[in-house]
Amino acid sequence: MNTILIVGAGLSSTSLIEYLLKHAEENQWQVRLADMSLELAESKIKGHTYGVAFSFDVSDKEERALEVSKANLVISMLPPTMHTMLARECVKQSKHFLSPSYVSSEMQILDKKAKSKGVLLMNELGVDPGIDHMSAMKIIDEIKAKGGELLSFKSYCGGLLSPSSSTNIWQYKFTWNPRNVVTAGQGVATYKDNGQYKYLPYQQLFAHPLETSMPEYGNFEVYPNRDSLSYRSLYDIENIPSILRGTMRRSGFCQAWNAFVLLGCTDESYLMRDSENLTYREYIESFLPYDERSVEERFADCIAVSIDDPIMEKFKWLDLFSDKKTGIKEGTPALILQKILEEKWTLKPDDKDLLVMQHQFVYKQDGQQKKIISSMSYEGIDQEHTAMAYTVGLPMAIVAKLILQSKIDLTGVQIPVAPQVYEPVLKELETLGVYFTEQEEDFE
Amino acid sequence: MNTILIVGAGLSSTSLIEYLLKHAEENQWQVRLADMSLELAESKIKGHTYGVAFSFDVSDKEERALEVSKANLVISMLPPTMHTMLARECVKQSKHFLSPSYVSSEMQILDKKAKSKGVLLMNELGVDPGIDHMSAMKIIDEIKAKGGELLSFKSYCGGLLSPSSSTNIWQYKFTWNPRNVVTAGQGVATYKDNGQYKYLPYQQLFAHPLETSMPEYGNFEVYPNRDSLSYRSLYDIENIPSILRGTMRRSGFCQAWNAFVLLGCTDESYLMRDSENLTYREYIESFLPYDERSVEERFADCIAVSIDDPIMEKFKWLDLFSDKKTGIKEGTPALILQKILEEKWTLKPDDKDLLVMQHQFVYKQDGQQKKIISSMSYEGIDQEHTAMAYTVGLPMAIVAKLILQSKIDLTGVQIPVAPQVYEPVLKELETLGVYFTEQEEDFE
Repeated sequence: MNTILIVGAGLSSTSLIEYLLKHAEENQWQVRLADMSLELAESKIKGHTYGVAFSFDVSDKEERALEVSKANLVISMLPPTMHTMLARECVKQSKHFLSPSYVSSEMQILDKKAKSKGVLLMNELGVDPGIDHMSAMKIIDEIKAKGGELLSFKSYCGGLLSPSSSTNIWQYKFTWNPRNVVTAGQGVATYKDNGQYKYLPYQQLFAHPLETSMPEYGNFEVYPNRDSLSYRSLYDIENIPSILRGTMRRSGFCQAWNAFVLLGCTDESYLMRDSENLTYREYIESFLPYDERSVEERFADCIAVSIDDPIMEKFKWLDLFSDKKTGIKEGTPALILQKILEEKWTLKPDDKDLLVMQHQFVYKQDGQQKKIISSMSYEGIDQEHTAMAYTVGLPMAIVAKLILQSKIDLTGVQIPVAPQVYEPVLKELETLGVYFTEQEEDFE
Repeated sequence: MNTILIVGAGLSSTSLIEYLLKHAEENQWQVRLADMSLELAESKIKGHTYGVAFSFDVSDKEERALEVSKANLVISMLPPTMHTMLARECVKQSKHFLSPSYVSSEMQILDKKAKSKGVLLMNELGVDPGIDHMSAMKIIDEIKAKGGELLSFKSYCGGLLSPSSSTNIWQYKFTWNPRNVVTAGQGVATYKDNGQYKYLPYQQLFAHPLETSMPEYGNFEVYPNRDSLSYRSLYDIENIPSILRGTMRRSGFCQAWNAFVLLGCTDESYLMRDSENLTYREYIESFLPYDERSVEERFADCIAVSIDDPIMEKFKWLDLFSDKKTGIKEGTPALILQKILEEKWTLKPDDKDLLVMQHQFVYKQDGQQKKIISSMSYEGIDQEHTAMAYTVGLPMAIVAKLILQSKIDLTGVQIPVAPQVYEPVLKELETLGVYFTEQEEDFE
């Protein structure tokens, strides 16, 4: 019997736990679910024969060593900064370790020791990062195998709302950490376009979205992610002339969001004076320059639209010009904006989320340029079984199974870019409803 | 005989040294001028009977202690971060100390000890900060003395070019540290307007300049400085409803400069790849989003003007769209922009600079609102005797004289806001050609 230790029983763990429990008997697994909250862990295990829920403090060194010692495989669903604590213990005790998060520099340091002990520390095993790596690598390897030369790679992902829930004027709600949504894109976005390096500052990031469309779901827009260039070495496509990774939003979102960026509403570097007693209207007034016109007029002027532009409805719908109080003590502009948005952008019980992903490849073969567009979309079922939790949890669960079945022989710090990982995972994901559709066409 | 030690013989020290040497005999001063470069120091002392030039390393503890011990008063013209080293030694040896720079937190720490030893550490004794404090406090104290209630205080200053040198299309050249000009305004500008706190982010800072005019010099525009609010406590006007400090530029400058801000050209947080081999055109292309139009068209689009807008001439004049190479290894966007600007904005031997300063006060007295506008301008004579060096050096020199004549009895860390300082300094400055003209009018 193999023992799987899962640390963290939050929302993103739901589908992971359900999959592992479902396949526990046939594979003879014991699933040990650890969380600070025993109640939360128990609510996920639901008294399953092959499951154990228990209260656990990962920062307790002895507890950590003891629980790792009982496991054959450890899955960390902790916040990103806490993975390494657990991974270090896994290396020490020669136990494999999985996480859905980006490889941190602290994690990377463990590579050598993990390799020398034959331990696998596999990260970036969720959806983005995760499924994006696997589905992109599959096509990149196919293009290379048939002698094609890759000219352009664009990869987009978005956590959005299903059309049935996407009814507000922004076509958006928080399906993910609101703070991360509010501060997304700060710094400079770097990518490469036709051999030219590009550096898009935050104040331009939402001003010129790319456009794309998805089967069944229509048009979307895309703003570039902060770092597209590091994917060249991860995917072994160092010399590609064009590479861009981006985030998908419903059409019209970026122009409106750009208003908050331009006004400085997403800044979290300073506290606003007496922020608790500001009304929403005074909050906006704080960022507008001096003159006698109304808040609405100056707001419109700052974002370079006329006061009767339809975009203004988006801001009115948020009550941005109302006399509601923020009620936030010691608030940064970003924190107050988050509060204003949460009033309207919080999921209702019957809201369903939507995960969309698209890769676009341009390559040259036999003198002909071709384009492949590979698209995936998945709608959540309810607020427990979200598309996000499903697409984050399943790759983790499937890789856990493959490791315990000795079908993966990698060691050290890894991400899922090897065929021995992506082939079986993508194949099984397809049977579980998470699949890509490909179009291929000649490219001018 | 009193000995004055001046540390630092750079450009800003010229007028200071000349004043002190000129008045050395009548006051029986010895002026000891210390600099890393003996040659530079000698070129400023010019063999004067009452002057001594010598080579000096302020970071050498023994040298520092020895030179301070010989002096009755120490004037630091070092870079801002190096003042404290010298000020600490002055406190230890009970010698008065002057600097033209803002009071740093390290300097502020010395306040208690300096007071207990009866030592004066007077800072912010140049033009801005310096003459601005003195000239503003004079009027603030006058308004208070006659029972007026101060409603609004706006204070502007600019280092520009005399009309005879202000002939390029930008009406601007570097008369001050180019790096500081390129990165000016980053962060958030805070001020207060009719009781409302304002937070203007960098991407809005140059988009909505205020306008003003100066006697003889015509129209200027003003962008807000980073921190206007701290002046409330410095000037003892805590409850003033409107306060704004700003930087003056010639009309049209801010809109054009804003293009560099919006595109991210002033960013110094990252290195551009292969920056040495970028042409100016490629440099600009790096910041422009994807599409098929020309660099000029997309540039114009990004700054929301049409391609034939007259503002585009300013950028063409800088050769911004040319194939000149940057030649800057490991360049940040800001460093490369600075290089491009230095090609065109470097002072020619016969260029003269211009210092402009203006305070605007609105106050209420006997139910009537009144406005005072107080303006000062000073043109440089040549590149050694710049307006900047003159207006920075003279307040320092005059305060040095007042201290040695025992006419100032302040101790501790100070800035020149007390009548015993500003009255005699402003009076003597007037005889030296640095004076304010006041207009007073009823205000709507």
